[in-house]
Amino acid sequence: MKFLQILRNAATSRHNRSRVSSIAANGRFFSDQAHSQSPRRSSFGIAFDIDGVLLRGETPVGGSPQALKRLYDESGNLRIPYVFLTNGGGVPESERAEELSKLLNVPISTSQVIQGHSPFKQFANKFENDLVIAVGKGEPVAVMSEYGFKNVLSIDEYASYFEHIDPLGKFKNWSKQQVGYWKNRDRKVDPCSERVQAVFIVSDPIDWSRDIQVLCDILSTGGLPGREMSSQPPVYFASDDLSYQGLFPTERLGMGAFRIALESIYNRMHPNPLDYTSYGKPNPSVFKNAENVLMQVAPSSTTVESNGLHPFKTLYMIGDNPHVDINGARQAGQPWFSILTRTGVFKGKENHPLYPADLVVDTVEEAVGYILSKET
Amino acid sequence: MKFLQILRNAATSRHNRSRVSSIAANGRFFSDQAHSQSPRRSSFGIAFDIDGVLLRGETPVGGSPQALKRLYDESGNLRIPYVFLTNGGGVPESERAEELSKLLNVPISTSQVIQGHSPFKQFANKFENDLVIAVGKGEPVAVMSEYGFKNVLSIDEYASYFEHIDPLGKFKNWSKQQVGYWKNRDRKVDPCSERVQAVFIVSDPIDWSRDIQVLCDILSTGGLPGREMSSQPPVYFASDDLSYQGLFPTERLGMGAFRIALESIYNRMHPNPLDYTSYGKPNPSVFKNAENVLMQVAPSSTTVESNGLHPFKTLYMIGDNPHVDINGARQAGQPWFSILTRTGVFKGKENHPLYPADLVVDTVEEAVGYILSKET
Repeated sequence: MKFLQILRNAATSRHNRSRVSSIAANGRFFSDQAHSQSPRRSSFGIAFDIDGVLLRGETPVGGSPQALKRLYDESGNLRIPYVFLTNGGGVPESERAEELSKLLNVPISTSQVIQGHSPFKQFANKFENDLVIAVGKGEPVAVMSEYGFKNVLSIDEYASYFEHIDPLGKFKNWSKQQVGYWKNRDRKVDPCSERVQAVFIVSDPIDWSRDIQVLCDILSTGGLPGREMSSQPPVYFASDDLSYQGLFPTERLGMGAFRIALESIYNRMHPNPLDYTSYGKPNPSVFKNAENVLMQVAPSSTTVESNGLHPFKTLYMIGDNPHVDINGARQAGQPWFSILTRTGVFKGKENHPLYPADLVVDTVEEAVGYILSKET
Repeated sequence: MKFLQILRNAATSRHNRSRVSSIAANGRFFSDQAHSQSPRRSSFGIAFDIDGVLLRGETPVGGSPQALKRLYDESGNLRIPYVFLTNGGGVPESERAEELSKLLNVPISTSQVIQGHSPFKQFANKFENDLVIAVGKGEPVAVMSEYGFKNVLSIDEYASYFEHIDPLGKFKNWSKQQVGYWKNRDRKVDPCSERVQAVFIVSDPIDWSRDIQVLCDILSTGGLPGREMSSQPPVYFASDDLSYQGLFPTERLGMGAFRIALESIYNRMHPNPLDYTSYGKPNPSVFKNAENVLMQVAPSSTTVESNGLHPFKTLYMIGDNPHVDINGARQAGQPWFSILTRTGVFKGKENHPLYPADLVVDTVEEAVGYILSKET
């Protein structure tokens, strides 16, 4: 199998130069350490970005089904630990796993799906019974409910309790439709008198004019729109992508663009700047979490060795976005090795100048072929 | 008639102190100059803000119908020249005049209606046959067509020619409805191959996520979404209000907030900062234009005197927004006199600290009563 490879040039960190030279030397990673491992022990794992690497919209790209098939044995059992590491979201991980199984034609478990909003689960205990608002396309309330939040409202339903809160609402039939759906649920509280304790931007917001208005109302009043100014409740963003490669020829605005719009307007109206937390790649915590998930996913018993060495010799991040995927893997450091494909955001001939990957290939199929030829 | 009046304090400009003292001295404005005037000559005019002064939503406030009625004689002919000076818009001035006549129960002519987008008319010759995009609620294309633009598309129709340009489009039934409407018009050109020569934000944009996306596409590519970067076409905003008083208890985001969102995102993606022009109060050119319109509206022959003195001794600006109405009138200077009402944005007991008005009253009815008692 022939690879069109571009290895990161020697101008990058010593850590990575040594990796590259070891490839050049013997075409096998850490082969000098490999024979110290148990044969049953999985010495590597893979994290796949989804959009622009495996799928474009709902269409597989770069031979992704064939590439993933190689990670299973003849009887269809997982033999190489891998996860999906995406900044996207809007549906529960369980649902996304089902979708991906159908689109990519391999059996995928819920635990293999790490979305931008997956870190929100850690706040389920803290805000368990507090009123929190979920924002974004898809099923943000279903996502948060699956995480264990018991008093969560979509911003669609929340806004519907405040007459005239969106002066442009009469032009938006569609939002009324969504409200109707949520209105069927039992309500334990009166949103007009209960303070919102936290806001979670689960996926890309649809109705920016209303969402920015209502969020400014919530955040500037301490959770009670229409009241006097008060301290800001926390707001969490699932990711901070300025743009991403969708189906249009040029990149589309992402959640990071929404955050910039909200922040710019809020800061113009409020004496204190917007205080927020955003997750998603390239945040190193996301890669740390992926390591832990990969240990659970690993088919053979993958545990931290007594000598404290990392259980994985190498973790491969395969992505199309230099700033998000490659930059993230580089910041995460050992044992991450970054592979950049040309099926999405990145379309360059050479390596990316600002965030050079350890390896550049055309497709995910080439990336997996390269990994398997090195590791097995 | 009793007035609850607060006159601008002596800390303000000398020009205005002298005005205030002349009121205190003899309760009549410029009475020392008045007898030098021809009796048929209208020595003053009035500019009314609409939202928060005359109407709230579609409901008259502050006794506005009674106040306006006093500006007509017994047979219903205009006896005092006045105009409506609003940053709002979205419908042709002729249509707005009809609406206002019904809501306020007085005969109002098209020439008396000055909206935020009225200055766009001056560009009708320059862009007469060029492809221009009209953005905002209401009937932005009808507005621009009445000004004389012959090749104008709503951003709703324009976006519909570019598949996948709005990745969130599938969640927005309502925008498809509007597109259907515009699609019935004859198209002279193919928007996918003809460069957009200018963008006009006519009224408050509804679908911010799509409009900011499409405008970034147009402005960063020189008018051809999906193509390479090129020089930015001009973009004009009808107003720059950060917020305004609608039907909700606290102010709602206005066109200025949309401009901030667009500018913040565009400047993050593009090497050159967004180049734009915005109109509307407090822009002094708007008040200059209102003076000229008032001269045409004036029932008696109001012309510039041979000695070069201004044809109006006093022009009254009655508004509810200190930053927009009062600040604007103050910047315009002579012969403008600012009156602040408490029926809209401003709710203070005393004068506004930052933009003190020449006079503060509760309602527009009090304002008109005050003016007529001084001037007639």
